Amino acid sequence: MAKKQKSVKPKARLPRGFRDISSDELRRQQAMLATIGHVFDSYGFEPLETPAFEYTDALGKFLPDQDRPNAGVFSLQDDDEQWMSLRYDMTAPLARHVAENYQTIAKPFRRYASGPVWRNEKPGPGRFRQFMQFDADTVGTANIAADAEICMLAADTLEALGIARGDYVVRANSRVVLDALLESIGIDPTDANVDGPRLTVLRAMDKLDRLGPEGVAQLLGGGRKDESGDFTKGAGLDGAAIGKVIAFLEAGASENALAALQDQLAGSETGSAGLAALADMEALARAAGYDRDRFVIDASIVRGLEYYTGPVFEAELTFEVTGDDGQPVRFGSVGGGGRYDDLVARFTGQQVPATGISIGVSRLAAALDLKQAGRADVTPGPVVVLVMERDQMPAYMRMVSGLRSAGIRAEAYLGTSGMKAQMKYADRRGAPCVIIQGETERAEGQVQIKDLIAGAKLSETIETSEEWRAARPAQVAVAESQMVQEVQRILAAQQADRAA
Amino acid sequence: MAKKQKSVKPKARLPRGFRDISSDELRRQQAMLATIGHVFDSYGFEPLETPAFEYTDALGKFLPDQDRPNAGVFSLQDDDEQWMSLRYDMTAPLARHVAENYQTIAKPFRRYASGPVWRNEKPGPGRFRQFMQFDADTVGTANIAADAEICMLAADTLEALGIARGDYVVRANSRVVLDALLESIGIDPTDANVDGPRLTVLRAMDKLDRLGPEGVAQLLGGGRKDESGDFTKGAGLDGAAIGKVIAFLEAGASENALAALQDQLAGSETGSAGLAALADMEALARAAGYDRDRFVIDASIVRGLEYYTGPVFEAELTFEVTGDDGQPVRFGSVGGGGRYDDLVARFTGQQVPATGISIGVSRLAAALDLKQAGRADVTPGPVVVLVMERDQMPAYMRMVSGLRSAGIRAEAYLGTSGMKAQMKYADRRGAPCVIIQGETERAEGQVQIKDLIAGAKLSETIETSEEWRAARPAQVAVAESQMVQEVQRILAAQQADRAA
Repeated sequence: MAKKQKSVKPKARLPRGFRDISSDELRRQQAMLATIGHVFDSYGFEPLETPAFEYTDALGKFLPDQDRPNAGVFSLQDDDEQWMSLRYDMTAPLARHVAENYQTIAKPFRRYASGPVWRNEKPGPGRFRQFMQFDADTVGTANIAADAEICMLAADTLEALGIARGDYVVRANSRVVLDALLESIGIDPTDANVDGPRLTVLRAMDKLDRLGPEGVAQLLGGGRKDESGDFTKGAGLDGAAIGKVIAFLEAGASENALAALQDQLAGSETGSAGLAALADMEALARAAGYDRDRFVIDASIVRGLEYYTGPVFEAELTFEVTGDDGQPVRFGSVGGGGRYDDLVARFTGQQVPATGISIGVSRLAAALDLKQAGRADVTPGPVVVLVMERDQMPAYMRMVSGLRSAGIRAEAYLGTSGMKAQMKYADRRGAPCVIIQGETERAEGQVQIKDLIAGAKLSETIETSEEWRAARPAQVAVAESQMVQEVQRILAAQQADRAA
Repeated sequence: MAKKQKSVKPKARLPRGFRDISSDELRRQQAMLATIGHVFDSYGFEPLETPAFEYTDALGKFLPDQDRPNAGVFSLQDDDEQWMSLRYDMTAPLARHVAENYQTIAKPFRRYASGPVWRNEKPGPGRFRQFMQFDADTVGTANIAADAEICMLAADTLEALGIARGDYVVRANSRVVLDALLESIGIDPTDANVDGPRLTVLRAMDKLDRLGPEGVAQLLGGGRKDESGDFTKGAGLDGAAIGKVIAFLEAGASENALAALQDQLAGSETGSAGLAALADMEALARAAGYDRDRFVIDASIVRGLEYYTGPVFEAELTFEVTGDDGQPVRFGSVGGGGRYDDLVARFTGQQVPATGISIGVSRLAAALDLKQAGRADVTPGPVVVLVMERDQMPAYMRMVSGLRSAGIRAEAYLGTSGMKAQMKYADRRGAPCVIIQGETERAEGQVQIKDLIAGAKLSETIETSEEWRAARPAQVAVAESQMVQEVQRILAAQQADRAA
């Protein structure tokens, strides 16, 4: 058997574009997800879990090409020949769920969902093919209050996660307003061709933040060559049209955006309707106490997805970080969404208005790391009971069991190495202290407890090993019956140190 | 566009063998996972997340057959021609992770993992192709204390979930002991052929619980026809061998299993070694306070997986439920595991001893439902602010925001229907109360708060609608500034009622 294994031994490696998440990051992510869920709960949303797979046609993707069955999504064919794909977002499965259960769900339907999504894209640094999303959506109402509420939800979520007011802002715009602009420069706003003029213009507008008005003007006109020399084809607008778009963007980003846009879109019925909806959203947010420092109307917000039909929104972190080029840049978007009134109609033919947001969990986690937020409740490592005499294992298990019963993380060392390796193991596990009972202590019914945190601190000040031995730093001997209380005392002291 | 949609309209349906999980079940599952994680944490295990995909060869599956690429697992081919599969358990990805990171992880490595796994099997009632597992494993030690600890962990987990002591038991056996039995009846214990005599005998032994000694004897001999007439081929043992196996099972299930098995396997070196390990496990568990009511040695425990090499264990719920045939049966296994010393060696050639357990989350959730355990902390529905005047939406949003700021789940009704439909919506959402502010209340700066729970109770005792109107049951008018306090009072009263 060993011989056979040798000949076919596979290499242990992660699939391309996937990653393992180890305990520290995972614990922080779990805490984040719990906080987000708590805020979403407070808004009356209810959790829903859909499976990883959907039928490919239900996801809104065309049936796979035999040659490239996995373009964009991961797809495979079931025994009965039907194509299934792994979900690439949480919205498409929601639309399927609502269409399938329309008669029995209470409407408006407020649901949240978190979990992995999969994208079959070229992996790159920090770009993975599986990542976590956390979405909230309200389905079955055209009420603009639903959109306003989603924006407030985003603001409350960021604050609950420890992002201070002033370090973020939620921006809203409306596809209807953008449509009015497109109409005014002679572009068909219903054109859904990804390479067509409408989406080329919208993509150009979306880059205002990064490229500034000049770069956007190039993309709206003949095209733009970036620093690396790559050329992006432009939308081919004439000078007048480019001027209109740039003026629109500048008006839309101004303090009094709604009034300024009214001037830009004067005479457009579509424009007036879109601006009225944005004015309603603003009024609702202000009434609920969400002022300009948390929620603004901003006409430069476009959002990439093709299916939005009304308001679109983006949650942005506004504090600065150092960019790739060493210059300070804003951290940027950590979530976004909008109104999509056609997704359920794909199945039923009946329009079911809906709006929602998707929080980018990984990006937000990176932001929290930068702000050092949410770090207070770190899970300490386990207390490690060292194994001084192998045949006393039952006694060590009894100690461990006593610690656990008192709610203390604890384990006995289960390897086969000696004292030095055991201490190293305890260090690597982040153990707050170790318990030592050798033959001598056992005879006296005692244990030694060594505080590793205090020990590490002392070791910075003690210089000679004589001093060290004389001080026996941060080590106490107590009766075994007092062990739990003494460990609790040490943990409390360490906790107080961390909080200070 | 509408026309085009019509012609390609997909049917909204879940893929075969998959399911959606709605909020009540999902909340219970999340609470369960948090409790399990808390117990695993207390044992010093650390969480690890691996991606859904592994390379097919790393999962230990052979490369897919072109004709049946999805036999047992869901597989697909990446752009670079490598086959990837969705994980079917948590153990194979752990082995890959350990082999890949062997030099850098602290050993023994104690990790837990929870998440969905996928099996491409024929779906059936209650048998899904995606389900949740929760595993804990200790990798890198042959110390039998690691196995004993996993059994204690299982016991503590069940109790933390609300399964009372006496309603469960953790049973342990050893593959080494089973090997000794097989040797004694002339079967090669290294035979890994799934249709070979070794696995046929082990599968028969595994059915003792369900078929009794007589059924097992048939499966060990010529074969067995079940009630539906289906015939299962037997292992073809002779009468003496069958007698030996049955005697072994009876000895192994007896109160003094270890001594009884010693007699059965007298003279076998393998048997003595296996029994000594079980005796050590028992001693360790007893020292830590886990007595016969929680942990027993039981030689009828086999476990299905082929890769176990030492102790195997099963966590079983012992309370009775009504079986398919109307007869009371034990609820049965909710988790199991064992020692597997060869999985990492598949990659590295170097043996890395390991042991672990997998908790069947869905089965355990079903058990908790039956015991009505873990139901205390139900999340109540949101307080619903009714929309009496559409143009007062900003005022309703302000109320909702005030309730949420006080930590109360709340929402304004976002649909377009009238009062009656709004009340029905509030009922369906499980709202504890609704807030009503029409023109009259608004003029007086008041809100009406209607306690829906008390209202439902009263409606059982009030008989005429005159009585009802006269009583205005469970409805109070308060100044809007008092709304939050009054809602808090109502929620507290309802909570106290539920607790009683």
